[in-house]
Amino acid sequence: MRLNPALQSFACSACEHVASALALTAPVGLCPRCHKPLAARYALRQDALVPRHERAGLARWESVLPIVELPAGYADDVGATPVAPWPRLAPELGLDLWVKHEGGNPTGSFKDRGLAVGVALGVVLGARRFCLPTQGNAGVAASLFSARLGLPPCHVVMPLAWRGSPYHRACALFGADVRFAGANVAEAGRAMREALDRPLAAGEVVDLSTFFEPGRLEGKKTMGFEIAADFGRAQPDWIVYPTGGGTGLVGIWKAYEELAAAGLSPGTPPRLVAVQSERCAPVVEAFRRGLAVVEPVTSRGTAADGLDVPAAIMGHGILAALRASRGTAVAVSEEAIAAAFRRSGAAGVPTSFEGAATLAAVETLRRDGTIPAGSRVLLLFTAGFATHVSRVEV
Amino acid sequence: MRLNPALQSFACSACEHVASALALTAPVGLCPRCHKPLAARYALRQDALVPRHERAGLARWESVLPIVELPAGYADDVGATPVAPWPRLAPELGLDLWVKHEGGNPTGSFKDRGLAVGVALGVVLGARRFCLPTQGNAGVAASLFSARLGLPPCHVVMPLAWRGSPYHRACALFGADVRFAGANVAEAGRAMREALDRPLAAGEVVDLSTFFEPGRLEGKKTMGFEIAADFGRAQPDWIVYPTGGGTGLVGIWKAYEELAAAGLSPGTPPRLVAVQSERCAPVVEAFRRGLAVVEPVTSRGTAADGLDVPAAIMGHGILAALRASRGTAVAVSEEAIAAAFRRSGAAGVPTSFEGAATLAAVETLRRDGTIPAGSRVLLLFTAGFATHVSRVEV
Repeated sequence: MRLNPALQSFACSACEHVASALALTAPVGLCPRCHKPLAARYALRQDALVPRHERAGLARWESVLPIVELPAGYADDVGATPVAPWPRLAPELGLDLWVKHEGGNPTGSFKDRGLAVGVALGVVLGARRFCLPTQGNAGVAASLFSARLGLPPCHVVMPLAWRGSPYHRACALFGADVRFAGANVAEAGRAMREALDRPLAAGEVVDLSTFFEPGRLEGKKTMGFEIAADFGRAQPDWIVYPTGGGTGLVGIWKAYEELAAAGLSPGTPPRLVAVQSERCAPVVEAFRRGLAVVEPVTSRGTAADGLDVPAAIMGHGILAALRASRGTAVAVSEEAIAAAFRRSGAAGVPTSFEGAATLAAVETLRRDGTIPAGSRVLLLFTAGFATHVSRVEV
Repeated sequence: MRLNPALQSFACSACEHVASALALTAPVGLCPRCHKPLAARYALRQDALVPRHERAGLARWESVLPIVELPAGYADDVGATPVAPWPRLAPELGLDLWVKHEGGNPTGSFKDRGLAVGVALGVVLGARRFCLPTQGNAGVAASLFSARLGLPPCHVVMPLAWRGSPYHRACALFGADVRFAGANVAEAGRAMREALDRPLAAGEVVDLSTFFEPGRLEGKKTMGFEIAADFGRAQPDWIVYPTGGGTGLVGIWKAYEELAAAGLSPGTPPRLVAVQSERCAPVVEAFRRGLAVVEPVTSRGTAADGLDVPAAIMGHGILAALRASRGTAVAVSEEAIAAAFRRSGAAGVPTSFEGAATLAAVETLRRDGTIPAGSRVLLLFTAGFATHVSRVEV
């Protein structure tokens, strides 16, 4: 593994700060000037943006990632997930309906993409230890990729209620050091940073929190490149995305922007829809109010674990992507999420509660006319059904 | 969907009976003469045995399946699973170690391959209703593919202990009619056949039990074609396979035989290893005794649900494949399965208890010298970790 020679810099998403990739001597965190997320910038030739089908998994996109020469067996089973039409639900919704199935990733969710790159980038820049607070899937993925590289245990902090959960068990299986604090990921994160104050300040541990380092965004970006490549000249009109921290939404948009910058835009890019739970909807609230940043809310709790994210450090980037794509943001009820979970299973395309929220959102957006009949709509089913099916009455 | 024009017949695996594919007017079950499994035979040109990379999932192999023109969205996310090296464990085992990751299939296991084809073949031959007894994953897969085609509820019978299990919940999510009977799949099957005696006899319901119809074998066969294609000129020396009913093992061997018959053999085919639990090892027992058929045993129960199969109607086919490939059969202890489950997770390649049994088997076969150092060994990790991780202490 080494840095991609095409990587030029990490540029702040909010201020003018730019850190040259040549000068790096340690892992990259938040912007040292304004403490907002950094994002990778590359000098990309057109041929870098074409998937390498002779490679497996995430390595197909190495030429647009910050690190190249990923080790054999490290991310061969990450990404390259199927997109498929959903003919059973398309007619009643009046849509050309598609699903991207992220549940086939090794830990069962799209989080594998971001954490595979986040861990690899940190290691290339000298790190050996990682930490993160998690609502579940991100911690599982960070634990897996730490295990794959034989690193010291990943320090994972989960909300107190997660003790004994499938997320906890999976992190432990992959050798993580699992701790519990707070009621949600924001509180877990605060506890983690207090506990690891010194090693974090000394750069001995890399904080893999959403957008706290630039690798996860680059990994999630591969979803956008895959969608753009798979749909070719008939891109989706809308991509509907369950939004917690928003890495995937910002990542998908970054992919379309990098394609456009290289003169490879596949036509009008899709309009992005951010879906949240009514009980924790800071992005929807900020979008509706026309704000430039996302203000933290107090979560009232949601069954969709990945949506229980009351603050978004990259809120400005999420809102910018929604507006630039002429998209929207919508909140759905817990009842609608549960109903959509059952409906998607009964129609043969199972998903997690977060994925189900996108189906619930499409039902809303069809009813209110935001999405016209006949639109090509892609739902991001970000995780499989295995974790949440255990919480359903049978 | 329609029958593959290259399909010639369904031939008995045990007697001389052959049913022409042209004369079919109803779903195909066991051999009407000797009640042993039937297997599909084709007239295959060489170009039929090359994957269609422009197609998705199982449809890449339509030209070697009994049905073609699979509906869009039906099996796009089935199969085409990654194979990857496992560098963290390879050195200590002294092997060139590889894993095929079947957990990425839509219900999380390799069962999706067989049931996708079994259900589709039954429908093409006129069926609308299906039933099967299950240790878990097969029932989940049958339920999913029934849902995808909008069929009446699949009739699934599970051992009594499975009430409320993740398997039960998943089948219910996909709309199945789930019943409970007996202590294992054999007892569940007997109860199912008693309850459905008349509709089964009248051909109103198709019995999807392992090897009771020829579609599942054809679906599982795709694993063999994928392995042969992915490894090219450097095939595995050994393929290590967790063996319950044995559909996958017989299917993998059928793929290598069909390649050889078409003049496309990729060199010496891999030697097959059937792995079972010491507590339910009818195949291992029959192999050691040099028998031609597998005699039923009384299971003492195993944590590896998919291995809790005390009888094998295709035992003669399993034993023939093991011998023809110069392979072997090995039983592993429950303790070794549990240890391998933890070891594989800690080394970053999670799997189910069944998959873990293959790692335990390789440890045994290295110790006793059956597999020499430096061999290229492929483990079939037939399911993901999600179901079994909930049974592990953390």
